[in-house]
Amino acid sequence: MVLAGLLDLLSIHYPIIQAPMAGGVSTPLLAAEVSEAGGLGMIGAGYLNPNETRKQIREVKSRTIKPFGVNLFIPEKTFWAEGETRKAYDALEAFRFKLGVESSYSTSSADHYKEQLEIIIEEGAPICTFTFGLPSDEEIQLLKEKNIVLIATATTVEEAKLAERKGMDAVVVQGSEAGGHRGTFLHTMEEGLVGLISLVPQAADRVNIPLIAAGGIMDSRGINAVLCLGAQAAQLGTAFLTCKESGANPVHKKAVLSATEEQTVVTKVFSGKYARGIYNNFIKEMEEADAAVAPFPIQNSFTGGIRKEAARQNNPGYMSLWSGQSPRLSRDVSAFELMQSLVAGLNCNNE
Amino acid sequence: MVLAGLLDLLSIHYPIIQAPMAGGVSTPLLAAEVSEAGGLGMIGAGYLNPNETRKQIREVKSRTIKPFGVNLFIPEKTFWAEGETRKAYDALEAFRFKLGVESSYSTSSADHYKEQLEIIIEEGAPICTFTFGLPSDEEIQLLKEKNIVLIATATTVEEAKLAERKGMDAVVVQGSEAGGHRGTFLHTMEEGLVGLISLVPQAADRVNIPLIAAGGIMDSRGINAVLCLGAQAAQLGTAFLTCKESGANPVHKKAVLSATEEQTVVTKVFSGKYARGIYNNFIKEMEEADAAVAPFPIQNSFTGGIRKEAARQNNPGYMSLWSGQSPRLSRDVSAFELMQSLVAGLNCNNE
Repeated sequence: MVLAGLLDLLSIHYPIIQAPMAGGVSTPLLAAEVSEAGGLGMIGAGYLNPNETRKQIREVKSRTIKPFGVNLFIPEKTFWAEGETRKAYDALEAFRFKLGVESSYSTSSADHYKEQLEIIIEEGAPICTFTFGLPSDEEIQLLKEKNIVLIATATTVEEAKLAERKGMDAVVVQGSEAGGHRGTFLHTMEEGLVGLISLVPQAADRVNIPLIAAGGIMDSRGINAVLCLGAQAAQLGTAFLTCKESGANPVHKKAVLSATEEQTVVTKVFSGKYARGIYNNFIKEMEEADAAVAPFPIQNSFTGGIRKEAARQNNPGYMSLWSGQSPRLSRDVSAFELMQSLVAGLNCNNE
Repeated sequence: MVLAGLLDLLSIHYPIIQAPMAGGVSTPLLAAEVSEAGGLGMIGAGYLNPNETRKQIREVKSRTIKPFGVNLFIPEKTFWAEGETRKAYDALEAFRFKLGVESSYSTSSADHYKEQLEIIIEEGAPICTFTFGLPSDEEIQLLKEKNIVLIATATTVEEAKLAERKGMDAVVVQGSEAGGHRGTFLHTMEEGLVGLISLVPQAADRVNIPLIAAGGIMDSRGINAVLCLGAQAAQLGTAFLTCKESGANPVHKKAVLSATEEQTVVTKVFSGKYARGIYNNFIKEMEEADAAVAPFPIQNSFTGGIRKEAARQNNPGYMSLWSGQSPRLSRDVSAFELMQSLVAGLNCNNE
């Protein structure tokens, strides 16, 4: 196991990466704290507009001179019939009524991906990671010319192999345990739900670029385990979500801190794309009604007002409570404290 | 981590247990070979009648003086309406016709559990493991008086806690990666699908009896990983299924040896209970028809003739091709060779 490979590539001390969590969960402060502590902090830029993307990159740079990364969502060409989309919007009327959210139908969803790539180059972000697919060959070439380290997200061996073939420098292998959105792009959601114990060694045998394991890892036991399996680093999301510096709503943090491992489900009712979160009334009622769901990111904007108002009312029943399968291991600590305990428990022979 | 605990309890050298695989997959020869090599061999007695159970125990004893275990299925009180069961039987008519299997409707399913317990006591089997629930308080007391080590199967922390409370000596925690039947008994199938990276440390924090991790573990990387997570041993099923001494049909072995990680699904179409296996025509056609499925073990006997005839015809499309999520790591070797390579790769500091 040649750990030096990935750590050298990223110029970080410890094999610990803070998962990018879009929608305001990962903050520039959180990213900077993780990078300062010797890990890799990440900006979750998936839902940010160009101005916000630039602002977050600059804030991280103002807080640390250490490396950090930016995660982007690869836009998809989704086509939908207006009638179907309207049906998905109407299916949410009961929730809007219950919470007192005004109706305002719109299917506009700006895609800022191209502009974000330019900003990443302009601002000199050292590392860029991608979810929901891979950048185009031209984009990969352009970013590589700028010496930006490129990291893909895969949920199967085939996806990881494609990332390698396209020239990505490393790949996050996302296990079925992971909270938030599934990165699956070549397979069905079900096919892409592979546990890390299975996914990491099978990918390690067939891919030569470094693997970063993600999903259910919350403490040094999990990090040591994925290093045994053949990963060169671990990416932790839920563990950082409950940290003081995370931007997750306090209701969301509280829900994760008191959840148990069997309470999360994979659902697309919130955004139109499958994601893992804590089962709640919204998921239950949408499933029981077998409600129409618009494609990503339309459904995400449709449910935005409901989720926001539920948070304002401290009502976890109608928020997206993203969480991996290890919520019992979550702690209410600072990112620095979490990093300290992660590093303290690393097996020397794996480091 | 006090590994000595479980290894001493079981009187074995290495933290390696061969998973019991009912239906003829695990054989007395396989169990004896694993025990002789310093692991724990297991008899999968779930579907055996009393005579077969006794015969297998005696065969193992004739082949090794080392410890071995016997796995039993806890019988369930399932109630079903005759009309519903008939519907499930009729739903299989097309498959019987296609393969040339004669129709012979019967819902008799003898439950030999009580007699098997007596045989285990009479024959002095040193270790007994249970799937689909827990023995009664009286049975636990009786077996403990006979100094038989008792091991439960759990898929959630709650199930593991109940096993401890009831006095079981150790517990197998079965991750979502595992092939074959799900052991879930307190939760729904979906709730019980927790990846090992999540399940092991969360259970380790809340249970004091030793944990044995099962699911997707195929080589020393997996064993080392679950020891890092807090387990004291690993139980491997699919890894032993393709061994020369396993009784799995050659068509089944071949299917596993050439499968990939995203090709398995959890389905109850074969037996009436959820189990993980390689997706094939039978699963596809049953799902597409939204066919009625009888409860376990009725469905298992309904599909028995179809599966048997398909095997005879070398047709993997209509067999139950149980496999965990790591088939890419399976190898066509002897049990002794497999044990040698597992032991060679164990991290000394974990042993």
